[in-house]
Amino acid sequence: MNVVVGQSGGPTVAINASLAGVYQAAIKAGADKVYGMRNGIFGFLQERLVVLNELLCDEEKIELLKRTPACYLGSCRYKLKAAEVAEEEYQKIFEILKKYEIDCFFYIGGNDSMDTVDKLSAYGKKIGSSIRFVGVPKTIDNDLMVTDHTPGYGSAAKFVATVIKELVRDTEIYDLKAVTIVEIMGRNSGWLTAAAALAKGEDCNGADMILLPEAPFTMESFFEKIEARLKVKNNLIIAVSEGVKLPDGRYVCELADNTQGEDVFGHKQLTGTALFLADACAKRFGIKTRAIELSTPQRASSHLASLTDIEESCRVGAAAVEAAVRGESGVAAVFVRACNKPYCCETGVVDIHEIANLEKTVPLAWINEDGTDLTEEYLDYARPLIQGELTPYFADGLPKHLVLK
Amino acid sequence: MNVVVGQSGGPTVAINASLAGVYQAAIKAGADKVYGMRNGIFGFLQERLVVLNELLCDEEKIELLKRTPACYLGSCRYKLKAAEVAEEEYQKIFEILKKYEIDCFFYIGGNDSMDTVDKLSAYGKKIGSSIRFVGVPKTIDNDLMVTDHTPGYGSAAKFVATVIKELVRDTEIYDLKAVTIVEIMGRNSGWLTAAAALAKGEDCNGADMILLPEAPFTMESFFEKIEARLKVKNNLIIAVSEGVKLPDGRYVCELADNTQGEDVFGHKQLTGTALFLADACAKRFGIKTRAIELSTPQRASSHLASLTDIEESCRVGAAAVEAAVRGESGVAAVFVRACNKPYCCETGVVDIHEIANLEKTVPLAWINEDGTDLTEEYLDYARPLIQGELTPYFADGLPKHLVLK
Repeated sequence: MNVVVGQSGGPTVAINASLAGVYQAAIKAGADKVYGMRNGIFGFLQERLVVLNELLCDEEKIELLKRTPACYLGSCRYKLKAAEVAEEEYQKIFEILKKYEIDCFFYIGGNDSMDTVDKLSAYGKKIGSSIRFVGVPKTIDNDLMVTDHTPGYGSAAKFVATVIKELVRDTEIYDLKAVTIVEIMGRNSGWLTAAAALAKGEDCNGADMILLPEAPFTMESFFEKIEARLKVKNNLIIAVSEGVKLPDGRYVCELADNTQGEDVFGHKQLTGTALFLADACAKRFGIKTRAIELSTPQRASSHLASLTDIEESCRVGAAAVEAAVRGESGVAAVFVRACNKPYCCETGVVDIHEIANLEKTVPLAWINEDGTDLTEEYLDYARPLIQGELTPYFADGLPKHLVLK
Repeated sequence: MNVVVGQSGGPTVAINASLAGVYQAAIKAGADKVYGMRNGIFGFLQERLVVLNELLCDEEKIELLKRTPACYLGSCRYKLKAAEVAEEEYQKIFEILKKYEIDCFFYIGGNDSMDTVDKLSAYGKKIGSSIRFVGVPKTIDNDLMVTDHTPGYGSAAKFVATVIKELVRDTEIYDLKAVTIVEIMGRNSGWLTAAAALAKGEDCNGADMILLPEAPFTMESFFEKIEARLKVKNNLIIAVSEGVKLPDGRYVCELADNTQGEDVFGHKQLTGTALFLADACAKRFGIKTRAIELSTPQRASSHLASLTDIEESCRVGAAAVEAAVRGESGVAAVFVRACNKPYCCETGVVDIHEIANLEKTVPLAWINEDGTDLTEEYLDYARPLIQGELTPYFADGLPKHLVLK
């Protein structure tokens, strides 16, 4: 049995752990060759394959892989067209699969990547191929359907909560009125911004407001809440999702007229929500404001990974392999939570249609009444996902990474 | 003997380690009461004092203090006027010092804070007071004179180098032309931006350019270098100091006309250097660009502190106490490096005039010829400062902090 695995879409801290999980489970299942595709399906189309058996030949390399951010194999944002309009691309893919005698194809990615798995599996069935196609979800956005949570979310949430906690300490030191706006990734779902709520505890007052795209937002009510809060507290810290929306459906940052076009999937590129809001507060209240965009480090900070997330991300990769070995295709491995306290989460497999191209948002019941905080239910849901640390391997003062040259 | 200690200016990850060092050394030297001033000299003027003997009563609290970012006692940006024009303020300070029977006054801060120590010590001498005033330097900027490096720089440098390393992994995953501009703190000195050079190693290509305020910069040569580099490499990552300057002395970000006024010390508030340059590159080259501002986490990320920095910051606090006990006043504790390999660094004491209100910039000899990288000499200088980790105390998935309520 030969298998191939690829990574696609935006990186997370845990996507290489899923790669490690796929690799180890494939070897355990008796795979001869485990190929890795460089730059996802885009590189596969150019036959840019590596042999992971050689690259991940010892346990130390696998452990280092789990501690390496982004995609070890590289990524792509290449969306397959429908087979009806671009069949030659599908033919090419199946030719390469045949040439390398590949039995199972694993694709680690977000919902756009699950769409690739869906299309390839459907085409395979149509042409009578026995190759199995299985998706391994990942995204810091936690916005995939069916799965209890996504691999990669726990580490990103741990990073966000830690940084918010440190920023709260930083902002509280001055005896002055000030507003700090922290912008967190999340286009249509506020899952990652919600993680700011985890910062609150015995030793931290937490953020003063947490604003998600799911909750109604108007500039007027935003200003009113800040004004009220500034009467009782000096330094406000506000966590805001990049995708916070106005009642008319526009993104708040569109008020500043500085969006940067669309990506190849037609998603609007958002920027400047925090900058816009900080500037608006400075003008309205005449006080010091600061905009902080957590930006790429949210998805790349493997120096602060959640051990739970890394271990689960390995397991979901292994679950994908086990499904393929059982003969399943056109499916994705997912998490099924049995219990919050004590936390218990199993892996499962679902039809890829249930996950591809769909988005899961934060339930409104988990957002408090005035749309500025999360409920205990969210905290109970998210807290187990950030538990434990995977300490980096440090060399000469910096975390070491495994790099494919 | 009673002593008082305060913290002032912008926070670092190590400023509480210096507080711990002052406290422990004062107790060791037989101090009865160790007072802490809330919000620096500003709070002292309002007699807002706490008794550290009560707050730091056990070893665990002191260890937690060393792992807490920002200023445990709070900070201020309050600059004393000259005694000639505001003598009543000095009289008030000395009245409070007398009331609490304080023998030694320690002030942890940057060069503006050293100015406070200078003024109080001079006034004390003038009125025949025997109270000793000793400064404990701190700043992530590493821009203080005389001292080999500043407490706080090592941890900030470790953070910057780690994040750059992670961002290099993140940016390299796509097979597309792109430019990422990472903005790092440093108004007039490029020390912290220089730390990006530490990222380069066996497992990391490092940044493609590192731009400091000390090196000449023009938009034309910036574009030329990017154009040349894009011919041989896909994803460029450029570390840029917020204070990068044009030949006419203006900050680059002033080209975007978006500076935010001045702070109370008359320093220009800078913002948007990376945004401006990323936007300029997008327009010039028609490729994807991204601006990342490392912002406040550079000075607040105690979850990634340098153990060397934390230990040295304790020691420099202790050295200040020892100097005061010897009867010295109007001095600051500093680091004196004996050797790079093996690294060996002692503490010393210098006249506060040699450090207050002065800035140390990166030697031009440590910047390469085309002004885009650092030399081996810088690496040899900086590498020892980022060694070792002070692992946070984690509780329920997040680092714990010691908080004064």
